[in-house]
Amino acid sequence: MINIVKIGGNVINDREHLEKFLCLFLSMPGKKILVHGGGKEASEFGRKLGFEPKMIEGRRVTDKNTLDLVTMIYAGLINKRIVALLQSKNCDAVGLCGADGDAIPASKRNPLPIDFGFVGDIKPEDINISFISELLENEKTPVFCAICHDKKGTLLNCNADTIASSLACALAAKGPVNLIYCFEKPGVLLDCENPESVIPVITTSNFSDLKEKGVITAGMVPKLQNAVDAVIKGVESVKICLDSDLISEKGTKIVK
Amino acid sequence: MINIVKIGGNVINDREHLEKFLCLFLSMPGKKILVHGGGKEASEFGRKLGFEPKMIEGRRVTDKNTLDLVTMIYAGLINKRIVALLQSKNCDAVGLCGADGDAIPASKRNPLPIDFGFVGDIKPEDINISFISELLENEKTPVFCAICHDKKGTLLNCNADTIASSLACALAAKGPVNLIYCFEKPGVLLDCENPESVIPVITTSNFSDLKEKGVITAGMVPKLQNAVDAVIKGVESVKICLDSDLISEKGTKIVK
Repeated sequence: MINIVKIGGNVINDREHLEKFLCLFLSMPGKKILVHGGGKEASEFGRKLGFEPKMIEGRRVTDKNTLDLVTMIYAGLINKRIVALLQSKNCDAVGLCGADGDAIPASKRNPLPIDFGFVGDIKPEDINISFISELLENEKTPVFCAICHDKKGTLLNCNADTIASSLACALAAKGPVNLIYCFEKPGVLLDCENPESVIPVITTSNFSDLKEKGVITAGMVPKLQNAVDAVIKGVESVKICLDSDLISEKGTKIVK
Repeated sequence: MINIVKIGGNVINDREHLEKFLCLFLSMPGKKILVHGGGKEASEFGRKLGFEPKMIEGRRVTDKNTLDLVTMIYAGLINKRIVALLQSKNCDAVGLCGADGDAIPASKRNPLPIDFGFVGDIKPEDINISFISELLENEKTPVFCAICHDKKGTLLNCNADTIASSLACALAAKGPVNLIYCFEKPGVLLDCENPESVIPVITTSNFSDLKEKGVITAGMVPKLQNAVDAVIKGVESVKICLDSDLISEKGTKIVK
C-alpha cells in the first residue's frame, strides 16, 4: 500500500503544527509520499518584495518574478524544511520538484482564454513511475513540491492537488494506492457553515447527483473532481479531512 | 570514473554562460556530480529584502533569516534552474541538498571564537555514499547545493568547495574520482596579476613549499588545502581552472 498525502499552507506555516502532523504521517503504515503546497507563504514573501499576488479563479498568475518566488519558497524553503524535520524523525525523506529525475513533466497552459504565465498542467500518464518506484523501493519517502518542468529547461508552477492525484493515478497501475487531501475543513460538508455536517462517503455515482443538487459548493468541485477521477482511474480511496484526522476514520471518503 | 565539478556564482548568474558550461559538463565521459554555490545571487536577493550580507573571513554569517534566504536561493532557485536545464539536454539530473536522503550530514560550527550562526562543517566519513551511489548507478546526475542538515531537523549553510571535496573523498573509496573546481582565474597563478602564469602541476609534497615561499596567496590557501587533502585521501586528481577550460588540459592540476 502506498499512501499519498497532500498538505496545504495551514499545516506548513507553523512549525509546531507541522511537527505534529509529520508524527501522524509517519505513524501510517506502508510506503508514503508527501505533496505540499505553500501558497500563503509565497504570497506573504512576495509582499515583502513588494509585489501583490495576482489570482484568477483561485489560481496564481505566474510571471517570471513569481515563478522565481514560488520556486524559492516551494522547492527551497518549505521542501527542505519538511525534509530536515522528517530526517530528524528517522524518515529517509528526499525532497523533489517535478524536474528532478524528470519525475513530473508538465506542459505550459495555453495562454487563451486566460494567460496564467508559467503555469503547468500534468497528465498522470506522463509521470515517471520508474524513478519514484526506485526511491520507494529503496525505503525513501519522496516529498514533492508543486514545481514541475516542461522538459525544455523551463520550470512551471503547478497545482499541488493535481500533482497528488496524478501521482496516485500513475502509481495505482503498480499496486494499491490511497490518496489523502488534508483540508482546512473536517471533510466535504452538507452545510458549509456546520462542521458537524461532514458527508462520510461519496461514490463516483452519487457525485454528479450531489453536484447537480448544489450540495457541493463551487470551490469544492475541482478538488472533488480530482478525487473522483483518481478513484475511477484505480486509486483505492481518496479521503478529504483535517490534517489532525489523518489516521482516524473521520473525514469524507471518496470510493468507487 | 566519477567527475565531481564545483561551480560558483560567476557561472550560475548568467543563463547563457550557464548553458555553455552545462554543455561542456555533459561532454565529459563517465558519471558526474555537480556542486554549486550561489553566494552572489543570495547577497543580491538579500539586499532586495533589505539586509546586507555579513561576512567574516570570507564566510557568510548565517542568522535565521539568512538561513531561510540561502535555502531559498541555493536549494530552490539555483538548484532547480540547473536541474531543468540539464534535463532539457537529456541529462537525468536530480537536485539535492544534504538533507535529502541524509546525503550530507553536517555539524553546526562551534560559536567560539566566531559565531557564524547556522553554518555547518562536513566530514567525508559522514557522507551517505550508498544513496549517492544508488543514484549514480541508476544513471542519475546529482546536483548538490551547499545546504546540509544536522540530523536534528535544522538546515545548515555549508561551504560548496568542502562539499565537493568531501563527496570526492567519500566516493574515492569505491573507485576513481576526479575533482574539478571551476574558478574565476585560469588556475593557481605564480603572479596573481598575470593570468599567463598558471602553475600547471602542484604535488602534495611541493604544496607546503609553495605556501612557505608565499607563492600561494592567502585567499587560495583553503581552496588548495581542500584539494591537497582530497588527493591525500585517494582522489586521483584535483583541477582548478576556468569553467571554459573544464575539458581542456589548461588549469592547475593537484596530484599526489
